[in-house]
Amino acid sequence: MHRYRSHTCGELRASHVGETVRLSGWVHRVRDHGGLLFIDLRDHYGITQCVVDPDSPAFKLAETVRSEWCIRIDGSVKARTAETVNANLPTGEIELFIRDMEVLGAAKELPLPVFGEPDYPEDVRLTYRFLDLRRETLHRNIVKRTQVIAAMRREMTRVGFTEYSTPILTASSPEGARDFLVPSRIHPGTFYALPQAPQQYKQLLMMAGFDRYFQIAPCFRDEDPRADRLPGEFYQLDLEMSFVTQEDVWNTMEPVIRGIFEEFAEGKPVTQTFRRIAYDDAIRMYGSDKPDLRNPIVMEAVTGHFAGSGFKVFANMIAGNPKAEVWAIPARTGGSRAFCDRMNSWAQSQGQPGLGYIFWRTEGDKLEGAGPIAKNIGEERTEAIRQQLGLGDGDAVFFAAGDPSKFYKFAGEARNRAADELNLIDRDRFELCWIVDFPFYEWNEDEKKIDFAHNPFSMPQGGMDALENQDPLTIKAFQYDMVCNGFEIASGSIRNQSPDLMVKAFEKVGLSAQDVEERFGGLYRAFQYGAPPHGGMAAGVDRIIMLLVGAKNLREISLFPMNQQAQDLLMGAPTPPSTQQLRELHLRLNLPAK
Amino acid sequence: MHRYRSHTCGELRASHVGETVRLSGWVHRVRDHGGLLFIDLRDHYGITQCVVDPDSPAFKLAETVRSEWCIRIDGSVKARTAETVNANLPTGEIELFIRDMEVLGAAKELPLPVFGEPDYPEDVRLTYRFLDLRRETLHRNIVKRTQVIAAMRREMTRVGFTEYSTPILTASSPEGARDFLVPSRIHPGTFYALPQAPQQYKQLLMMAGFDRYFQIAPCFRDEDPRADRLPGEFYQLDLEMSFVTQEDVWNTMEPVIRGIFEEFAEGKPVTQTFRRIAYDDAIRMYGSDKPDLRNPIVMEAVTGHFAGSGFKVFANMIAGNPKAEVWAIPARTGGSRAFCDRMNSWAQSQGQPGLGYIFWRTEGDKLEGAGPIAKNIGEERTEAIRQQLGLGDGDAVFFAAGDPSKFYKFAGEARNRAADELNLIDRDRFELCWIVDFPFYEWNEDEKKIDFAHNPFSMPQGGMDALENQDPLTIKAFQYDMVCNGFEIASGSIRNQSPDLMVKAFEKVGLSAQDVEERFGGLYRAFQYGAPPHGGMAAGVDRIIMLLVGAKNLREISLFPMNQQAQDLLMGAPTPPSTQQLRELHLRLNLPAK
Repeated sequence: MHRYRSHTCGELRASHVGETVRLSGWVHRVRDHGGLLFIDLRDHYGITQCVVDPDSPAFKLAETVRSEWCIRIDGSVKARTAETVNANLPTGEIELFIRDMEVLGAAKELPLPVFGEPDYPEDVRLTYRFLDLRRETLHRNIVKRTQVIAAMRREMTRVGFTEYSTPILTASSPEGARDFLVPSRIHPGTFYALPQAPQQYKQLLMMAGFDRYFQIAPCFRDEDPRADRLPGEFYQLDLEMSFVTQEDVWNTMEPVIRGIFEEFAEGKPVTQTFRRIAYDDAIRMYGSDKPDLRNPIVMEAVTGHFAGSGFKVFANMIAGNPKAEVWAIPARTGGSRAFCDRMNSWAQSQGQPGLGYIFWRTEGDKLEGAGPIAKNIGEERTEAIRQQLGLGDGDAVFFAAGDPSKFYKFAGEARNRAADELNLIDRDRFELCWIVDFPFYEWNEDEKKIDFAHNPFSMPQGGMDALENQDPLTIKAFQYDMVCNGFEIASGSIRNQSPDLMVKAFEKVGLSAQDVEERFGGLYRAFQYGAPPHGGMAAGVDRIIMLLVGAKNLREISLFPMNQQAQDLLMGAPTPPSTQQLRELHLRLNLPAK
Repeated sequence: MHRYRSHTCGELRASHVGETVRLSGWVHRVRDHGGLLFIDLRDHYGITQCVVDPDSPAFKLAETVRSEWCIRIDGSVKARTAETVNANLPTGEIELFIRDMEVLGAAKELPLPVFGEPDYPEDVRLTYRFLDLRRETLHRNIVKRTQVIAAMRREMTRVGFTEYSTPILTASSPEGARDFLVPSRIHPGTFYALPQAPQQYKQLLMMAGFDRYFQIAPCFRDEDPRADRLPGEFYQLDLEMSFVTQEDVWNTMEPVIRGIFEEFAEGKPVTQTFRRIAYDDAIRMYGSDKPDLRNPIVMEAVTGHFAGSGFKVFANMIAGNPKAEVWAIPARTGGSRAFCDRMNSWAQSQGQPGLGYIFWRTEGDKLEGAGPIAKNIGEERTEAIRQQLGLGDGDAVFFAAGDPSKFYKFAGEARNRAADELNLIDRDRFELCWIVDFPFYEWNEDEKKIDFAHNPFSMPQGGMDALENQDPLTIKAFQYDMVCNGFEIASGSIRNQSPDLMVKAFEKVGLSAQDVEERFGGLYRAFQYGAPPHGGMAAGVDRIIMLLVGAKNLREISLFPMNQQAQDLLMGAPTPPSTQQLRELHLRLNLPAK
């Protein structure tokens, strides 16, 4: 017999009854039933109930074992009686009668209980992550994580992509976030950087004539602690294709991502054909470029109904500012004063002056718009608004007014809040869409200049002609996001591979050709030697897994995460360097005054 | 038709003749055949011959294109005439008659030719790596690299392993080589380290109850430039298993690695059953713990034949030093004075006093041992040596003598040299074996103390009893290497998972329990909470690929390697940090005096 096991703890069935077997695993739970000891033995594959009575030579030792000891058990497989069969356990038809036992690894008193997974402070869980990871939910999440990533690799390979690993010790590249730096020992006074994303390398791969690249890519950003991002490193499903338009990227990746969701959605519905929503439309309809499409509320402009109306706050706004609009946030089933007042209070808690509303109720046999705004604009305008929005008895509408670029975010939040409160969102589904036609530039109000809105490497729609002749703030990019349930899960673009176009595009944000060469030299140089049209995207592996397992916290789907203060409590990092290390790296500490 | 291509450049066959198609790719070569222009168009998938004559509307533009321009071509597929069919090219049955052409990306004058792959200085190749990677051999090597790695993933999954990614920003761990450090911005005066290997994390995964882990793992070592290792990062096929003996690891991994070799060996024979050679035997037989088994020479001790003999140098050595031995390096077909003298000169060039030898020739009808040693020891002893080694007419033997621990390396080199010179090595095969039973400790002559011979985390054979009662220098470890054609391609061990044993093992090299806790705290702590027996290994991905493609230089199988001075010439790294970066990281430079 094998030194440690003949079977795993998830393997024994009724068909094994009568066999002598050997199992190894952890003591999940010990129960003392008056002389009879029950030991639930757990390994990666499952749990087997083991039992020992005082007649067994192993009884004395069995009495000493405690939770989470690692032990080996020899015994005979017995059928459970009908009333003790456990249908919830794959091994629930049998139990193992213990003949021999060996302690492989005893455990000190546990700093963290495994069985039952009671709530426990995060710092203890992270310090004893090896125990935390034995807990059933986290263990299952991590296994699912590995399965999702394996499925990504499988699907990407199936549709003709090849995985290439790009360097991790590389050049500092000002891509937006802050780089982690790595001092060079051999070249005093210089540093490598860890990649924020393999963006430049994947584009260089296209320059090098490879065609369909992907990578489950580690990415590094030295950001201040954020609840929705792990400090340090995260993973992207990164991909790039040559000789493609944006439709090619969408048509290639939509089935891949849909397939991944379907494979791991455990029966929840997944969008079959992703809508392609222009950025401007997404903002107008949902107040967000990452709309939660499970939320049925679609906003509409109702500016005309307020122009010249008796509701002077809006009417004056419209008369005084050509940019002013009034957006309606229709809220079906929200037609009660109590709800509308609650929304109004919430808006005030968000720093808004309030949230105007109308709600409809039937008075006698007449459908009537109620609330101060309805009173001010009168019955006719109120009815016109109701008809435009298709609302009825028991429904409400909220209004946001002013310059849409100023209020759209708040309107989007109000849309989410209303749907949340009214329980309009079907949480058991995955609604996916593309957001396309992102603006190429945006106005930087602080510095009074034009900036890239998103990715400076994207191709502007209209090319050189647009850059030369169009108001830059109206130029769109061949740039797109994939959104699921209100989260951006992927982002990509067709790249600007023309050196002239690149220089022109950077010129608009105040950077010269020399700046471009200095900052993106590898790529800029490559574009001058036969650059193919290319594009791609990167999907957030961690976010997709969080959605699939329904985790609220990144640490519930990560193996050995740091805490929010960017410390690895398990391994003890970061730590002070030795004097020799500092000397070898040609560095001195420059500590802040206490 | 698609914006850029209806087919790839490797796709068109005779069956496409008559079709109008669109291709995109790079101008591999342009040939002007008196008015007729031939353009070989290349992409990732292949090469298609395109042709244009002055009647084509595309002729004018076609005349302007140069090597490595990226272009789109529309045209009609024509059958080649029988005499122009190119059987070496998958698309060699057809050519594309050009009707329309578009320049997608022009190229400046090339700093590095792609076609024909002439030798070129490495710094130019690395600076323009995107062009270098278009060269056929390197492009093919990289594709093979991706295929080998994909096959590793596939095979590991097939035998029940799961891929887990372990952290890259982690704690400094004194595992032998020097760490790359990453300064923490948030915690002034502290540093993360990049992992030299995921050793501790993979063991922690076993503590966490996961079972069969693998990872294509990036590893980082800040070593001084070495010809056989890329600066910075390299990849391991890293794996770990719980509840296993070393036989389990061997029996699991031998078929995986053999399968990988067979899949990519292009018909070259691969060892079917790997011999398991004890470390001590490998040293005695091959003078190396990474023997090239394609070399048929097996060394043997012939000490007895020299004891008390007339060859006083050896006889006195044997009489004066109980450790002294004489090893024979038999060299079939080496039986000429010219060859033996060449070997002797080579040995002197290696700093040895010389290399004693006997060679056999037939004088008349008598087989005779020739050379000074044969003369000194006489016919009888010479004949006894010949018989022991099974040599005959035209063969030779070389001798190394003294303390084997001092001369075995040289003897191994002489074995390789002789086989090389005599062309005894069949280079077109892959000979794999396991080297097992490595010593646990070794004597550090400089510091006059005992050190770990290899991996301090390995389990000593004999456990606590051996540690307490055995001469430490005779203790073996459950530790093993896999060797192919003279290269170590993998290394592993059963781990010491007992906290008591770990403390005792470190005690012998002068480290206290407190030292162990400080240096390997995460792991040491984990061992105290129900540690399972476990073991594994790590295979060198880069080395395996080098063997499979027959590359002599790591840069021939790496995508974006640094140069030997640890510089990334393409992206320009490492670079000086900005003042702001230094300030944020709480560092000052401490540059060496010029």
